Amino acid sequence: MRSRRDVDVPALVEQARAGSPRAVARLITLVENADPRLREVMAALAPHTGQARVIGLTGSPGVGKSTTTSMLVTGLRARGLRVGILAVDPSSPFSGGALLGDRIRLADHALDPGVYIRSMASRGHLGGLAWATPQALRVLDAAGCDVILVETVGVGQSEVEVAGLADTTLVLLAPGMGDGVQAAKAGILEIGDVFVVNKADREGADATVRDLRHMISLGDRTEPGLWRPPVLKTVAERREGLEELLEALDRHEAWMDDRGERARRRAERAAREVEAIALSELRSRMGDVRGNGVLQRVTAEVVAGRTDPYAAAEQVIAGLT
Amino acid sequence: MRSRRDVDVPALVEQARAGSPRAVARLITLVENADPRLREVMAALAPHTGQARVIGLTGSPGVGKSTTTSMLVTGLRARGLRVGILAVDPSSPFSGGALLGDRIRLADHALDPGVYIRSMASRGHLGGLAWATPQALRVLDAAGCDVILVETVGVGQSEVEVAGLADTTLVLLAPGMGDGVQAAKAGILEIGDVFVVNKADREGADATVRDLRHMISLGDRTEPGLWRPPVLKTVAERREGLEELLEALDRHEAWMDDRGERARRRAERAAREVEAIALSELRSRMGDVRGNGVLQRVTAEVVAGRTDPYAAAEQVIAGLT
Repeated sequence: MRSRRDVDVPALVEQARAGSPRAVARLITLVENADPRLREVMAALAPHTGQARVIGLTGSPGVGKSTTTSMLVTGLRARGLRVGILAVDPSSPFSGGALLGDRIRLADHALDPGVYIRSMASRGHLGGLAWATPQALRVLDAAGCDVILVETVGVGQSEVEVAGLADTTLVLLAPGMGDGVQAAKAGILEIGDVFVVNKADREGADATVRDLRHMISLGDRTEPGLWRPPVLKTVAERREGLEELLEALDRHEAWMDDRGERARRRAERAAREVEAIALSELRSRMGDVRGNGVLQRVTAEVVAGRTDPYAAAEQVIAGLT
Repeated sequence: MRSRRDVDVPALVEQARAGSPRAVARLITLVENADPRLREVMAALAPHTGQARVIGLTGSPGVGKSTTTSMLVTGLRARGLRVGILAVDPSSPFSGGALLGDRIRLADHALDPGVYIRSMASRGHLGGLAWATPQALRVLDAAGCDVILVETVGVGQSEVEVAGLADTTLVLLAPGMGDGVQAAKAGILEIGDVFVVNKADREGADATVRDLRHMISLGDRTEPGLWRPPVLKTVAERREGLEELLEALDRHEAWMDDRGERARRRAERAAREVEAIALSELRSRMGDVRGNGVLQRVTAEVVAGRTDPYAAAEQVIAGLT
């Protein structure tokens, strides 16, 4: 382990921009660790961001997320695009475990210099996904990724959070998992821009597709001009359905640009990111407030009856900025 | 119900200071409701606070808290002191229920103009006890109470919070409830300044007293000059032990003043109160941040790559003050 002092932020940022996977990895580790130098990192990265297309990919365990990701990477690489893969584990404070398996399944691309693969833990105490993921995306964006795939297990609220981070959200299902009906309950219908029924060679695939299409048609998405999420079939293990999937993603991209939707989603993503950083910063400063003297001073005024607790709180807040 | 607009804060504060129980009750209702006019109320009350002695009273259900409170009120009233009673229910977001019974047991004092009785819910979403109780204490303090008894059921962390609010904390136990041993586990030994074994006419009272004294002697409180919490016996229903209890409370008060401990506790109490208000205020302002234009403006800069999310968060924070 190198010590903290060894990190030369400008050099690291320069190396990451030049395409060093090692530098990219180290910068994302700074994000994971909520390193205080992130401020400097993000300032250096800012002018080089905003190019990457972010595609979220979510689904229950077992639907074939990593295989589908791998297939997508093959297709995107064939187009000459640089691809970043961020596998976010919302359930664990530490990387590894389940994600190790994902990495193995992505082994096809592990030696491709045009592909970055990174798994990341979302540490609950820092605001989790909302805090860390956008910053990791910035790193990959500035490193020259044309497309970033954010893969997360669809558990709890994490898939909704990932949808909030992506330009396009791809929801994966598999036949015979009862996913069709559950999707409606879980709110997956609201977040999906493209639905994929993977393992479509299995029995029940057509029924799952039909169920999904029916549920989507029941939604509010049939008005003219609105995006109606397509439901595709893939067998990712055999790369079947890749072209249709890429085409659907292209159509969604074109639709977004047509309607100003991409700009709207990116503004919303940046707003959430800034909010999460501001909240985390305020929490940290309030934690330090006892050490900074302001609280002690205003408290003495309150005890003496010379000021009221609201006015004192106002002074504490002013002292935070 | 009178509408919000009818509340004339300066008049209400004046009436409360003149001793109107109705005005006191309405001000505490403003506290319970986290009314925005509390700022004005607290500013008006500030110069008139700091006189009341705050005694916390806690114990498990069934130990006789209300009967002991009633006995204490009798003793304090005999000394000519004005008494406020604040019964805080930490487990419920609404007043009533269990507290209704307390009010009935305090019926002896209900018509005494020198006694204010008030139960209060601690609403979790506002920071609970830490936010509301100190402000209710200010109201009673400014209304001329010489002593305020804060009564709370000893469940979870609430007794520790009440101890943080009080000048003196009185912990109540009863024989045969296994309280002696549990007290040590629950951390009650750390918060009690005076221990009372109530229902001391029951079997096992002496054993409970002995257990408690033993556990206290095991603590760190035997150094010279430190306060060693006395363990008293009462039968509150028959007013037995009242004089000894009042005397123990007096001794603790004298010890505190001797050591500057009262000033220290009050400063700590005010600091927690100011922190709780500041945090609640920051949370509320962050919630409003999307409406105030600053977030939208800085977010556009982030999307354009002209600023980084940390610098943007800094601007949002600056906009909060």
